[in-house]
Amino acid sequence: MLILGIDPGTAIVGYGLVQVAASGRLEAPAWGCIRTPAGEKTDRRLALIYQRLQDLIKENRPDIMAIEELFFNKNSRTALAVGQARGVALLAAAHAGLAVAEYTPLEVKQTVTGFGRAPKDQVQRMVQTQLKLAARPEPDDVADALAVAICHASFAPWRRREAEAGVLQS
Amino acid sequence: MLILGIDPGTAIVGYGLVQVAASGRLEAPAWGCIRTPAGEKTDRRLALIYQRLQDLIKENRPDIMAIEELFFNKNSRTALAVGQARGVALLAAAHAGLAVAEYTPLEVKQTVTGFGRAPKDQVQRMVQTQLKLAARPEPDDVADALAVAICHASFAPWRRREAEAGVLQS
Repeated sequence: MLILGIDPGTAIVGYGLVQVAASGRLEAPAWGCIRTPAGEKTDRRLALIYQRLQDLIKENRPDIMAIEELFFNKNSRTALAVGQARGVALLAAAHAGLAVAEYTPLEVKQTVTGFGRAPKDQVQRMVQTQLKLAARPEPDDVADALAVAICHASFAPWRRREAEAGVLQS
Repeated sequence: MLILGIDPGTAIVGYGLVQVAASGRLEAPAWGCIRTPAGEKTDRRLALIYQRLQDLIKENRPDIMAIEELFFNKNSRTALAVGQARGVALLAAAHAGLAVAEYTPLEVKQTVTGFGRAPKDQVQRMVQTQLKLAARPEPDDVADALAVAICHASFAPWRRREAEAGVLQS
């Protein structure tokens, strides 16, 4: 299973591909970020994000997109800016026929670090360790994208079982 | 000039087309809203909004999309949900090569009602009067979409003059 983790923002979108082997071992074949020019109008920046995400999906053919759910701890200006980019990411997934799995920030941190309120640098270190990366994933947005993909990797077997048992339609 | 006003949301997107005659007289050839099924996943709802907006743009060929700017008076859950739909609306504009004009809620209310903090029903009444509609535009989302289009109609001559003078690149 190949998971595309996304951490959305208008200025920068982090992405991380996480491959789950049959053994359960995790690997990250690719990660990085999409940056948009600060001077550009918002609609052009969003169009750039959409285009790059479509390219990423076409080139890598992931099985699912993993993304953080709504969060409420930031101010409304941040939430709106994140929301715009998140909407475009979800649209890119829908247009590519890619399923989307959503996790709360708490679930992501809990899964990756064992602690739901872990600081940024601990998430980066644990992502590096779990994926055996040579260096810490930078910037934060990339680490967060890989983290939500790792989160899905650990939840996916349970979600599948629940879906088979008819408990969860996801 | 034909202006497409948009009031975005994930559950409901209001839209309103406002035609500005050479005499400056305003008319609304069409208005309405796009509703998305509450039980549907967010990515599907956003894809539906995108599709309907693309159809609207193709069928009516507006000259510009008018939309409210970021607002900060609501909570972050609302801002994120609005942000997602707003991102998709801006993307539809970018993909159709349609320019986007943004106005603050204050500018919209000031232009339409003469009072920047006018209540919802006053906006509805003034939109009805200015566009000579047989009934009040309902729901709020439609009135707000028509209002931002009216706002652009009154700002557009100034923006053009500024652009010609090289003051504003928009």
